[in-house]
Amino acid sequence: MISVGIIGASGYTGGELLRLLENHRDVEVVHATSRQYSGVPVSRVHPHLQDTDLKFQDMDPGRMDADVIFTATPHGASMKIVPEIIERGIMVVDLSGDYRFEDTGVYEEWYGMKHEHPLDAVYGLPEIHREKIRKAQLVANPGCFPTGAILACLPLVYEKIADTFIIDSKTGVSGAGVKPTSLTHYPECSDNVIPYNVTSHRHTPEIRQELSRINPVRLSFTPHLVPVTRGILTSAHTFLREDLESDELMEIFTGFYDGEPFVRVVDGIPRLSAVRGSNFCHIGCFEVDENQRAVIVSAIDNLVKGASGQAVQNMNIMCGLNEVEGLDFPGMHP
Amino acid sequence: MISVGIIGASGYTGGELLRLLENHRDVEVVHATSRQYSGVPVSRVHPHLQDTDLKFQDMDPGRMDADVIFTATPHGASMKIVPEIIERGIMVVDLSGDYRFEDTGVYEEWYGMKHEHPLDAVYGLPEIHREKIRKAQLVANPGCFPTGAILACLPLVYEKIADTFIIDSKTGVSGAGVKPTSLTHYPECSDNVIPYNVTSHRHTPEIRQELSRINPVRLSFTPHLVPVTRGILTSAHTFLREDLESDELMEIFTGFYDGEPFVRVVDGIPRLSAVRGSNFCHIGCFEVDENQRAVIVSAIDNLVKGASGQAVQNMNIMCGLNEVEGLDFPGMHP
Amino acid sequence: MISVGIIGASGYTGGELLRLLENHRDVEVVHATSRQYSGVPVSRVHPHLQDTDLKFQDMDPGRMDADVIFTATPHGASMKIVPEIIERGIMVVDLSGDYRFEDTGVYEEWYGMKHEHPLDAVYGLPEIHREKIRKAQLVANPGCFPTGAILACLPLVYEKIADTFIIDSKTGVSGAGVKPTSLTHYPECSDNVIPYNVTSHRHTPEIRQELSRINPVRLSFTPHLVPVTRGILTSAHTFLREDLESDELMEIFTGFYDGEPFVRVVDGIPRLSAVRGSNFCHIGCFEVDENQRAVIVSAIDNLVKGASGQAVQNMNIMCGLNEVEGLDFPGMHP
Amino acid sequence: MISVGIIGASGYTGGELLRLLENHRDVEVVHATSRQYSGVPVSRVHPHLQDTDLKFQDMDPGRMDADVIFTATPHGASMKIVPEIIERGIMVVDLSGDYRFEDTGVYEEWYGMKHEHPLDAVYGLPEIHREKIRKAQLVANPGCFPTGAILACLPLVYEKIADTFIIDSKTGVSGAGVKPTSLTHYPECSDNVIPYNVTSHRHTPEIRQELSRINPVRLSFTPHLVPVTRGILTSAHTFLREDLESDELMEIFTGFYDGEPFVRVVDGIPRLSAVRGSNFCHIGCFEVDENQRAVIVSAIDNLVKGASGQAVQNMNIMCGLNEVEGLDFPGMHP
Repeated sequence: MISVGIIGASGYTGGELLRLLENHRDVEVVHATSRQYSGVPVSRVHPHLQDTDLKFQDMDPGRMDADVIFTATPHGASMKIVPEIIERGIMVVDLSGDYRFEDTGVYEEWYGMKHEHPLDAVYGLPEIHREKIRKAQLVANPGCFPTGAILACLPLVYEKIADTFIIDSKTGVSGAGVKPTSLTHYPECSDNVIPYNVTSHRHTPEIRQELSRINPVRLSFTPHLVPVTRGILTSAHTFLREDLESDELMEIFTGFYDGEPFVRVVDGIPRLSAVRGSNFCHIGCFEVDENQRAVIVSAIDNLVKGASGQAVQNMNIMCGLNEVEGLDFPGMHP
Repeated sequence: MISVGIIGASGYTGGELLRLLENHRDVEVVHATSRQYSGVPVSRVHPHLQDTDLKFQDMDPGRMDADVIFTATPHGASMKIVPEIIERGIMVVDLSGDYRFEDTGVYEEWYGMKHEHPLDAVYGLPEIHREKIRKAQLVANPGCFPTGAILACLPLVYEKIADTFIIDSKTGVSGAGVKPTSLTHYPECSDNVIPYNVTSHRHTPEIRQELSRINPVRLSFTPHLVPVTRGILTSAHTFLREDLESDELMEIFTGFYDGEPFVRVVDGIPRLSAVRGSNFCHIGCFEVDENQRAVIVSAIDNLVKGASGQAVQNMNIMCGLNEVEGLDFPGMHP
Repeated sequence: MISVGIIGASGYTGGELLRLLENHRDVEVVHATSRQYSGVPVSRVHPHLQDTDLKFQDMDPGRMDADVIFTATPHGASMKIVPEIIERGIMVVDLSGDYRFEDTGVYEEWYGMKHEHPLDAVYGLPEIHREKIRKAQLVANPGCFPTGAILACLPLVYEKIADTFIIDSKTGVSGAGVKPTSLTHYPECSDNVIPYNVTSHRHTPEIRQELSRINPVRLSFTPHLVPVTRGILTSAHTFLREDLESDELMEIFTGFYDGEPFVRVVDGIPRLSAVRGSNFCHIGCFEVDENQRAVIVSAIDNLVKGASGQAVQNMNIMCGLNEVEGLDFPGMHP
Repeated sequence: MISVGIIGASGYTGGELLRLLENHRDVEVVHATSRQYSGVPVSRVHPHLQDTDLKFQDMDPGRMDADVIFTATPHGASMKIVPEIIERGIMVVDLSGDYRFEDTGVYEEWYGMKHEHPLDAVYGLPEIHREKIRKAQLVANPGCFPTGAILACLPLVYEKIADTFIIDSKTGVSGAGVKPTSLTHYPECSDNVIPYNVTSHRHTPEIRQELSRINPVRLSFTPHLVPVTRGILTSAHTFLREDLESDELMEIFTGFYDGEPFVRVVDGIPRLSAVRGSNFCHIGCFEVDENQRAVIVSAIDNLVKGASGQAVQNMNIMCGLNEVEGLDFPGMHP
């Protein structure tokens, strides 16, 4: 039995970690921290988790005893606590942006702050880095948009079929976290579609880093907030360098992702509801127009494959467990 | 031309007053106050109002010059500014709860605060008090739930057909105002139906006051928050004291509201979309079951007939204008 | 390994049965029928079920070989196929209304058709009939509204604390099934709350039958369609016959449902999102007003505890399996 | 007083024409046709239009007497009725795609049918063709997507600043019309974002025709269905041929649309709610990234500026009325 601690467990990704780990046969959650809700039963904050006796603790990360710790903390906060946990030999999956960048300068430019404690970390997208994750002590869990965007573009970059991408993503509101803001106020985002950080979203350099690792790309990214609770649908527009047809593209993707436990190349257009609540990424569409523009569409649940599910997948790999343990259930449609 | 000032113009009811008055032929808005947005163009805060040159002011109400002032201020705040405006001979339509109660004790019990400045005011439901409104200097604009609930029950109370009511209302989220809270955070209220203040909502004694004025009633009220932006749908359940059929009930309502400019008795079930954006109240259903329980359903737009539209209607009456001026357009379906 | 057949597997309840049974350790789905999609892979119709190789069959129910058959067929259709399956000694969980009524006359009156093949069946609400279900060959799976409504009223009826109920329910649109209609067309039901069958819904006599079994009741029921995909929130309004306070009511419910694997009495107001996708029924609120009206609120997922999950629970009981097998995961919030 | 007939008045664009014309001072609607609802009062089909006495007629278009006729008929149907109306000297605004293309071959290719009755028509986008509309007898009202897309790109094409466009549009579900389908079934499109006709939407050649009129373009277009009732938000991605900054772009747009009654260049990102129910098109964003990709965002109400409002605007121009008559009210936010 692997003992797990969750730092920052009262938010949406924390709640999702708890939901997923509740059915994980090899794991026991021993600590769930929250400064705000210290002493409060988990079931009061996460109304779906009525059968746990856990209470939130306001615990010093430096004294938390566990085999694996998930840091579901904001960027800037993770870098302050991860180093001391790592030093004590504990495995860490960090859900913030703090350890995702190879080049600390890129982090500092896009996140607008000094990185105080750089560490060696593996970027936790198993579809690219599975072998490194297996040996890692610190895994930087990918951002939600990058997960859907990288998986939609990766085979094309690998095969050098395309190098220019305009990625137009649509995200559910849970991606903004549990804290209410004007943007996430129901009357403001309901019945609206709201582009934001149109050319300046922090996930842009993350997508670029991972794709450029394979081959150089020219990449533009724009996210939109849509009146959906969970899910990111990514429409990746690209100009093909070769004259390929739809079924040839689909074949390339099917081959590339063969054997991947959580990527499914689907016939037709992926649906958010098909992956809702699950760790799957569905990829489809593959249409090409008269300008040789191809459109690849991916769908993920931003809180699962886009955050907590992928974090559990990474933990499974790091701990030598079955990669799909606790995650092998389908989405919820409708 | 009547000059109008709006105190508290940056919220949803303020924005709605500005939207409605923009097309009112006899009125000019001369002041729109907001402490938070002082100096900011109205068009920046209310994105739909691009054609006004108004800027928000942080103005002392005691020095505001206008024929009519709307106080779109929270309860507790209105009582601090209305008296000095009244003293200066200006007509006031107050959108808060501060002047709705005949018995100050009821106000103090349900609103949990001392009433510092009671004044004579007329309850601004024209369907009951039109003649008094005509002569009033201070009109207390009804609450959103009471508007829909009273209109749904009034003919039955008047005709002594029923005296026991269980009012189960469903409100759109704009009724909670412009300020984000946990309850109104999109992921929390989307795909949910949330009963709140189940037996303790402040609009309960307001409904009771107006119906009891006609005949004694035993009244229970429960509101629910639904994933809708605008609108209140009220299902008034009542036990009939006489054996009446559906079409007899409909006839009673049709007769009672004959000539009312903003009440429409409709065949079938009222739709929120049918009144969206408009000052109409639709009333329908009138079904009776084997327990002599009848169900009356009313639909209003909470921001229009439930707030700002009714306020303009009251202003029209107070100023001797055509009661429907600026308000005589239909709802928006779908 | 228990072999299972699903008749009518292409609709929402069929899809939900397939989703739930995919993770059930003791069961294998051997047949999934659909006349419309005969020969089509299940993954094409249910986009979330990408990992099954099942294809829909247009199979004669009289020749289907399985230990248990779920009939996810409309009322009127079930009575035509269930008898021959029963005759062959196969266990049946019928999700239609055809076998829910003890008195065939009630069925014929409310469903407007002759019942051609009455059979002995057990009403499949385990919280009332667990022991009978254990020995049954034919279980009539309860309707979605009755599940939430009966569980909200049962302890009060049992304890003779109340006998008059006005049940005001709000249902998600998936309850209307997979077939598009004007009512379920997005622009018509979005941003609306639509009462329907206000005094004539077929679930009324079903709720009444089960509660009256315990003690006589006077019961009125009205459903509303709300812009929610999954879930039924029921507000049961009742007048108490004794002077009880909120915490006394809660204690009665907690005691009554002690040990029930899928009923949770919660502090505060139940949330649809807390039970979404799960087989739990959450019950809460328990507020009492000055008219001795109490409000009990229950929340279920209409497709799970309100249909397919409860069907699996019934199968587990009938087959002597662990009652919670395949169902012991929490809801999905947000 | 101008007399108006509406052919196909029971759908969403028909209802919207009726809503808008109800407040038009210079117009009287004398005929509203519907084969399906012949004899039925308009108020029964359009629940928001309670104050009209009009009934739907099943009228032969060849015998309809009116100054102006709106044909709110599907493509393929318009071409069968417009010629005989034109022959009788009546002005026509056709809302279908039948008369939008200069090159009949393009129509036949994209609409997959032979054009039986080509006629001279003016493409009814006043921002391009106002003077021709003034003299036209037949105006082809633009498609909903083209209206938002052309207005977002036009100044850049005119100024030769860009010639390659990837247009990623998000439309509300009312754009699919009043007829229920699987795609528009609430549980299917709620909480989803659904790309459709990804490279094959019929509005593609329409956008291309109007922009290419000015200067050659390479244009790709992809629409998405979003869980919104009204509105189209268009994100036009383009690569600039010059090194321009955001405020320079904004200046170009502001200058270009100076004096246009229904286009507003806004600071920041346009909101669907800001134009909801109104005839305005808001254009904003203007951000540029490190790849010289610029993003222009436009927002319209698909049923108003994207259909019926623009049709009334065209009628006003054709009849020499004030262009904004009946349309000069702001959107509805929230």
